[in-house]
Amino acid sequence: MRIDNLQYANWSEKIFRQLREGGVDAIHVTIAYHENFRETVLNFEQWNRWFEQYPDLIMKGQWASDVDQAIETGRTAVFFGFQNPSPIEDDIGLVEIVHTLGARFMQLSYNNQSLLATGCYEAEDTGITRMGKQVIKEMNRVGLVVDMSHSADRSTIEAADISERPIAITHANPYDWSPALRNKKDDVIRAVTENGGMMGFSLYPHHLQNKSDCTLESFCEMIARTVDKFGAEHFGIGTDLCQDQPDSVVEWMRVGRWSKEIDYGEGSAAAPGFPPMPAWFNDNRDFGKLENGLRAVGFEGADLAGIMGRNWHNFYETNFCAAGETAQHE
Amino acid sequence: MRIDNLQYANWSEKIFRQLREGGVDAIHVTIAYHENFRETVLNFEQWNRWFEQYPDLIMKGQWASDVDQAIETGRTAVFFGFQNPSPIEDDIGLVEIVHTLGARFMQLSYNNQSLLATGCYEAEDTGITRMGKQVIKEMNRVGLVVDMSHSADRSTIEAADISERPIAITHANPYDWSPALRNKKDDVIRAVTENGGMMGFSLYPHHLQNKSDCTLESFCEMIARTVDKFGAEHFGIGTDLCQDQPDSVVEWMRVGRWSKEIDYGEGSAAAPGFPPMPAWFNDNRDFGKLENGLRAVGFEGADLAGIMGRNWHNFYETNFCAAGETAQHE
Repeated sequence: MRIDNLQYANWSEKIFRQLREGGVDAIHVTIAYHENFRETVLNFEQWNRWFEQYPDLIMKGQWASDVDQAIETGRTAVFFGFQNPSPIEDDIGLVEIVHTLGARFMQLSYNNQSLLATGCYEAEDTGITRMGKQVIKEMNRVGLVVDMSHSADRSTIEAADISERPIAITHANPYDWSPALRNKKDDVIRAVTENGGMMGFSLYPHHLQNKSDCTLESFCEMIARTVDKFGAEHFGIGTDLCQDQPDSVVEWMRVGRWSKEIDYGEGSAAAPGFPPMPAWFNDNRDFGKLENGLRAVGFEGADLAGIMGRNWHNFYETNFCAAGETAQHE
Repeated sequence: MRIDNLQYANWSEKIFRQLREGGVDAIHVTIAYHENFRETVLNFEQWNRWFEQYPDLIMKGQWASDVDQAIETGRTAVFFGFQNPSPIEDDIGLVEIVHTLGARFMQLSYNNQSLLATGCYEAEDTGITRMGKQVIKEMNRVGLVVDMSHSADRSTIEAADISERPIAITHANPYDWSPALRNKKDDVIRAVTENGGMMGFSLYPHHLQNKSDCTLESFCEMIARTVDKFGAEHFGIGTDLCQDQPDSVVEWMRVGRWSKEIDYGEGSAAAPGFPPMPAWFNDNRDFGKLENGLRAVGFEGADLAGIMGRNWHNFYETNFCAAGETAQHE
């Protein structure tokens, strides 16, 4: 079983076919960076069209059992998430609405301060806001997973503590391997995993040691060390693959509509676009290489299967249903 | 089994308890008259709150099997519908979105011309529009039932012909019993029922012979004659009960935001408010009286059970699922 818990590709039949070639049984895709509710609904609508157009390649994913159904029918189950709480605007009632529409992960902030939490690019991190506490409780109730990938440290640790259900960092790596603002220090990873949460290892070059030049071996050794420290069952993959996107999209991700000035985020004026992917991971057909890389550093059996997909499947199984309704969808 | 396929009450715990007292296992409630998409979502949100607040009295209804579950657990299943296509605005992609959120009936028009069809108060009826034909096809695909209760005759007959799945008139009576603009002539009822469709008999006084003074006997004899003419399996109840609503609400129903001048609809300047209900049907506790009235004019067995709820249940069973997916939710 292979699950990639974060992609934001410029979707096309080509990519849907590559998902099948790479044996990817499920993906969690970002459908909102800065979109408001109505704009996010347009993105749900676009996916409905793709499900209608490519019923042999993809299917809507809502529950862990949909991954099993995708495997049985040779398709990829597509789960939805937001990298910002902008889709719920200032209306807590939208938490259940977006969950009903299929959203399963929501970051409490992107890089900036949001209504709910502080982003990792802010100078000061004031933790979870008043509305944030209410929204975490509501997300727990309906089965929308708190994702803190782009949030600042204090906010993340507070979210892990406040949340009564496990939370996630869908796409990041350990800071001690590659000290990017977006990577996570040990106390953050510990707070999330101690709470039963999950972290997905990212292949976005800005999150890698030596960026685009990162070797498969270095990446897999980092995974081995992290797993030794925090427990193999808490980790999976979240590539952050942004395949076939024009550079205008990375600008949208970074600036949205919040600034008239360019903000380069993890890039720079000299290199404002998407960075090139490492040679050993260009698209969804390369998951086999990643699995072989993990084998080469000693992974096997349940740990290997866990990292490649089973751990996310287990996480989906207990965290997407409404509180107290876990069994209903299995 | 008792199903009321149209209500628009000023919902409260009192009414939810009266539904239980009246043995009403399922209701179809209007959640949009003139609301746009975002406003309709606020109405879905309000119902989510009520489901959370009164879990022992009501539950969200999505499939026929939810009626069975409501019966097993002593609750009322609440199904959603719109009396106007305003919630989908000019965006066909919203058809699947509102179905996912739980909408199961949508009128192609209220009293006026809509983007899809002509309402029964327009001087000329030009039938189903270009967008209307596309939307009927999409409603058929996802399992959103075409409701023509407030539409004009030609539009209704065309909708019954164009639709590849049965359509409904959720709340109206035969015109030859009570010649209101909103009541339906035989050729309209025939077009709908021949197509496998359903009509719900209305208790809204403007649709009754002698309005508020209509007798239970007259109402039940009308049902007996109608059933003799078109077949008992095509009829049920759709009371149009608007319990506890202030008169400002009937003005909203009639005028929405489409006119600065008052339009009295079925009322008049002398009697602009909600008309008083007939003495024998004031609220949901009176369904037993209605059932006894039907018995008194000779109904029994499967026909009686059909009118009181089983026919709507059968209709839900085959018309709420996506085309070709009927079995999935049973």
